[in-house]
Amino acid sequence: MIETLKWDGNLILLDQRKLPQQIIYNTYEDTEGVYYSIKEMVVRGAPAIGVSAAYGMVIAAREIFNKEEFISQYIKKGDYLISARPTAVNLKWAVERMISCAKANITKSDRNTLISKLEDKAKEIYQKDIDTNKAIGENLLTLFNENDTILTHCNAGSLATAGYGTALSVFYVAKEKGINLKAYADETRPRLQGARLTAFELENLGVDTTLICDNMAAVVMSKGKIDAVVVGADRIAKNGDTANKIGTYGLSILAKNFNIPFYIAAPISTIDFDSKSGDDIPIEERDANEVRKINDKFITPENIGVYNPSFDVTPNENIRAIVTEKGIVYPPFEQNLEELNK
Amino acid sequence: MIETLKWDGNLILLDQRKLPQQIIYNTYEDTEGVYYSIKEMVVRGAPAIGVSAAYGMVIAAREIFNKEEFISQYIKKGDYLISARPTAVNLKWAVERMISCAKANITKSDRNTLISKLEDKAKEIYQKDIDTNKAIGENLLTLFNENDTILTHCNAGSLATAGYGTALSVFYVAKEKGINLKAYADETRPRLQGARLTAFELENLGVDTTLICDNMAAVVMSKGKIDAVVVGADRIAKNGDTANKIGTYGLSILAKNFNIPFYIAAPISTIDFDSKSGDDIPIEERDANEVRKINDKFITPENIGVYNPSFDVTPNENIRAIVTEKGIVYPPFEQNLEELNK
Repeated sequence: MIETLKWDGNLILLDQRKLPQQIIYNTYEDTEGVYYSIKEMVVRGAPAIGVSAAYGMVIAAREIFNKEEFISQYIKKGDYLISARPTAVNLKWAVERMISCAKANITKSDRNTLISKLEDKAKEIYQKDIDTNKAIGENLLTLFNENDTILTHCNAGSLATAGYGTALSVFYVAKEKGINLKAYADETRPRLQGARLTAFELENLGVDTTLICDNMAAVVMSKGKIDAVVVGADRIAKNGDTANKIGTYGLSILAKNFNIPFYIAAPISTIDFDSKSGDDIPIEERDANEVRKINDKFITPENIGVYNPSFDVTPNENIRAIVTEKGIVYPPFEQNLEELNK
Repeated sequence: MIETLKWDGNLILLDQRKLPQQIIYNTYEDTEGVYYSIKEMVVRGAPAIGVSAAYGMVIAAREIFNKEEFISQYIKKGDYLISARPTAVNLKWAVERMISCAKANITKSDRNTLISKLEDKAKEIYQKDIDTNKAIGENLLTLFNENDTILTHCNAGSLATAGYGTALSVFYVAKEKGINLKAYADETRPRLQGARLTAFELENLGVDTTLICDNMAAVVMSKGKIDAVVVGADRIAKNGDTANKIGTYGLSILAKNFNIPFYIAAPISTIDFDSKSGDDIPIEERDANEVRKINDKFITPENIGVYNPSFDVTPNENIRAIVTEKGIVYPPFEQNLEELNK
């Protein structure tokens, strides 16, 4: 399995914009570098962004030399990192964990000890993501049988996390147990994470994978080729409404139309109990040229108007279950997610 | 309005593969050239393919010198042209018209007169397409009000026909009458006819146009931005099931989910009374590299499995009405299409 991120005292990220044609790692040594790596999508996927931000906050701590102002400056640097991408809640979650750790240790530690404690916390977040991924995969696998075919959207795999991924974790766990599962992957316009990343990742894993354009999902479903849809999540509201990569909402409507189960796979850290419903989730809009250009070349008239939301919100009634590391959550989500969080 | 095809004794086609970056016309002087221009999608769009094939059959007639075998050789050349693209029925329709014309004139005409009669017939098919487009636009416009917004898929515009187009004809007719309509255009993977052609065509016409990726249609609909979906057709079965560009089926399910009217715009020549239902319509599958490559560069792992159907079939129950040059046809389609054909 190719590593998405590494830590050697600095943050080393696989440059996912270059995949699958080139495998290049970039090293980030300051907070600004980490900010841009998230904003420009060198690293992407809610859990991987969270882990990167945790390490980014270790780097941020090294840039502060005034103990009295440490916490206030640390919070500012955290806000700066959070502003890189507004939708994925794991980013905010990881930054808040790091700030809490700093607050808990600031009075009793000298500067080096504090930084070392923060480094331990970031490593703990990294390791927890790996364990969480595996547990999600185990729980997902209970929903499937030998030779089932799963349709997925975007990349919620190893490349989106520190470990096996969320939605794609089921393929890794199935491989370990010698169970065969097949995949259809939406290419996922405009940034083509399905075509570039999921296709690459599942091919490397040896999974029988068929790539389709996003607009082919309906016909594939209508032919009975899909047993379930499994996708990741960038933020889950308290009531189960789920923000995920643009196109997920449409896919959930198609799945409902064909009576195909539609599952969300995500760690509990993706649930935002401060968002009552999808209406409270901020949706990032990205540059029009992401749609107008492919491989740096215009495919459209250069000034054509474009709408380019990076995410959409799937309403809870389209979701059969949310699969977490602690178990499978069925409706009513509001009550059952709350229960899980106790 | 930019001309899609011209005739000066040879067939001159706008090379749509190069749009919108380059405006280049190619001249075709033999049947083989016309065959490849259709197969490789220099010309595309069911009605434009039909008109091109009619002119192609004039060129084909010039290649036959034996009067006794004229009809049998002419039918062979027609079958060859029909084999260029299996789904669009207008191609078959135009070829059959040309063969009927040849049969009606073969005994009483010398070679030059026969070719001249065939040329007149092709010009008649060309002119009829222009008139038909305009009538479809007039009929479509009765369904809309000032400032309505129409979502369309692929390109069923001037670039798909000899005249104003089918689905997009409503924008040309509205312009003539000083009525404002707005557009959302699906980019339409894999060949991006929406991004390359519809965006270009509607921008040239001065229509307020927003380009979206195919997977953004659900969120745009959910925000109440779309008053209706209007698309063209490549073949309509007797019962109203409609083959159109891949992605149309999914779009019809979304429209139904949001209770947005979904209209097909097509000339009567697109209705295939020999196809009882969508099951009888052959669906062309195209090369996997159409999905794997953009602008001649791989965006995916080079050998990833791909499913690439060029069309899908929208079931009649998802269609609010079929708008033809003779009027608007509502369900029950089987009965009402039959009526129209009388």
